Amino acid sequence: MGSSVAVGRKQWWDPRLVVVTTDPLNAETRLDLHDGIVTPNRLFFMRNRFRIPEVDSDTWRLTLSGEVAKEMSLSYLDLMAMPSTSLLVTTECAGNGRKAMQPAPEGEPWQYGAVSTAEWTGVPLHALLDKAGVRPSASEVVFEGRDRGPVGEAGEEVPFARSLPIDKAMHRDTLLAYRMNGEPLPVAHGFPVRLVVPDWYGMASVKWLSEIRVAAESFRGFFQVERYVMIGDSFDPPVQLTDAAVRSVIVSPGRHQRLQTGSHVIRGFAWSGNGLLQVEVSADGGDTWRQAEWTSPRQAHAWRSWQCTWELRACGSTELQSRATDTQGTVQPRESTWNQLGYACNAIQTVPVIVDEASTTS
Amino acid sequence: MGSSVAVGRKQWWDPRLVVVTTDPLNAETRLDLHDGIVTPNRLFFMRNRFRIPEVDSDTWRLTLSGEVAKEMSLSYLDLMAMPSTSLLVTTECAGNGRKAMQPAPEGEPWQYGAVSTAEWTGVPLHALLDKAGVRPSASEVVFEGRDRGPVGEAGEEVPFARSLPIDKAMHRDTLLAYRMNGEPLPVAHGFPVRLVVPDWYGMASVKWLSEIRVAAESFRGFFQVERYVMIGDSFDPPVQLTDAAVRSVIVSPGRHQRLQTGSHVIRGFAWSGNGLLQVEVSADGGDTWRQAEWTSPRQAHAWRSWQCTWELRACGSTELQSRATDTQGTVQPRESTWNQLGYACNAIQTVPVIVDEASTTS
Repeated sequence: MGSSVAVGRKQWWDPRLVVVTTDPLNAETRLDLHDGIVTPNRLFFMRNRFRIPEVDSDTWRLTLSGEVAKEMSLSYLDLMAMPSTSLLVTTECAGNGRKAMQPAPEGEPWQYGAVSTAEWTGVPLHALLDKAGVRPSASEVVFEGRDRGPVGEAGEEVPFARSLPIDKAMHRDTLLAYRMNGEPLPVAHGFPVRLVVPDWYGMASVKWLSEIRVAAESFRGFFQVERYVMIGDSFDPPVQLTDAAVRSVIVSPGRHQRLQTGSHVIRGFAWSGNGLLQVEVSADGGDTWRQAEWTSPRQAHAWRSWQCTWELRACGSTELQSRATDTQGTVQPRESTWNQLGYACNAIQTVPVIVDEASTTS
Repeated sequence: MGSSVAVGRKQWWDPRLVVVTTDPLNAETRLDLHDGIVTPNRLFFMRNRFRIPEVDSDTWRLTLSGEVAKEMSLSYLDLMAMPSTSLLVTTECAGNGRKAMQPAPEGEPWQYGAVSTAEWTGVPLHALLDKAGVRPSASEVVFEGRDRGPVGEAGEEVPFARSLPIDKAMHRDTLLAYRMNGEPLPVAHGFPVRLVVPDWYGMASVKWLSEIRVAAESFRGFFQVERYVMIGDSFDPPVQLTDAAVRSVIVSPGRHQRLQTGSHVIRGFAWSGNGLLQVEVSADGGDTWRQAEWTSPRQAHAWRSWQCTWELRACGSTELQSRATDTQGTVQPRESTWNQLGYACNAIQTVPVIVDEASTTS
């Protein structure tokens, strides 16, 4: 199974990451540290259910079994020898923004920093599945990581495992990734190989991948049906999370920043599992909205940066807000739909700032 | 002027970079270290004409003068407060591949590693020029860096300085960059601010930027008219370098690698200052060519990865080759046009490999 990395033993990551829990390690990226589409590896947010396992790439094997014509067992080098693809992908934790939800749901109190973007390089999963020959009986593909621990009230020990419907597993951009921003995966991000599922919330992108099973039935594992489901009043039956909901964040100005009257650039990022249409900005607490302009090119699966120049005239407190709209016309809501586990909290973020009279000597 | 960084004093870069000269520091990126579009900062090739200057961003100013309505002097924070853009850009030294040219021209003997790709973030230059109000008399914009030293036979001390025609300077993607792959520019890459000129050879992207002068006349500086010009038999008058010529490289298999008969994936990158049409691959020394497939998305200014699966049947020595074609139909030549300073050496690269009979027990 490989040994576990004790938290804090290998602090290769940036000390400016905001640690949310230490065991298991969960840490988010301060919004003001994002500048540019790609998040450097040591600033990329970390989300772990269990202790980080250490895997030896020399002895690591990936097994592929179940509803396939030919079961397979691949080494790290076997995988490296296969055709590969590189893609920019934004990954967001399903609980990102949970701290803003009222009343407070269960789960890690993430602010807005459980989202980052990297260039992932690896083998398209469909190439491996094609090689193995998926049977017509296949309906899902189950992915199991090396990380494991007790879950639920019974405290049963399970690995982190999740499934994808066969169509999503066969999507050309679903990757078995072994590189991150041009470097081998850091241990905390799934070394030697992880799944990368573009457009879906991050829980789907299983790290430290060890087993792939093609299944005829629906997977009922803990992290498939007990977690990463929308439950609570308005969700009966529970709804499994898939695509990331449309969202934008402001990265500058920062919260409670003092600004002088006059012209200011408001900047941020926007992303969505369903493509982006536009971002609008308000600098008067939501009374008026103005369309922002994109400052990075469109990418299939990555966030885009935007900016909007706003003339601040009135002194005093005000609120900066941004709202993104996806290609289906869905706009970020003023309030997220409350759910017990606090997922998909994509409500409009509010950034309070204070505006002072510009000094006449400037 | 700021002090100079002695070579080797701050080796934050990766020791696997291949040092070509130590003073000034020039180092290239081993081709096999490229995997994914983005080159990590510490693996990005380094090209310096002089010692690397150290600049204090607190006291640094960027002056903008000449044919403008309003001369300006900006601080680092002034620049950071302006609207910014993020772009993936491939930068290639004009002398990349020079070592393959026969007879050997002057200049650093680069192999194929003087090319890398980063995401640059910064202020579009046109925004600054618009603010200053460019006069109709403007024909060029001259950029001066903090790096300086003696040049030519007289050994006169000059700064590294280059000009752009006004249209290229006003291009929306020409940037004053202050971030590289989401991090502040490393000192060796131009901290605090450098020019990034997409599609042109790297000499245009002046580092450690200190002055911008809008000029009515053609700039005649050393690095404009004595270097970065195609001179020699077939070039009379000399031709100044601009767009990077179409080129591809093979990153895997490596030179002299032993392969077994059977199926192999050949991988590489291709780029061009004029857009890419296709890449073809030959595994029989150029007798037959087959179209490769792209394995990364199209980007306005960055290289693309490609691959091609080839069945190697014959044992013995053979040569792998790739040739890219740009959108104007220009194909990489078998031989580059010789020129005295060895620029634009975009001839097809040849990677010799040895094919052995596959062992029957594999």
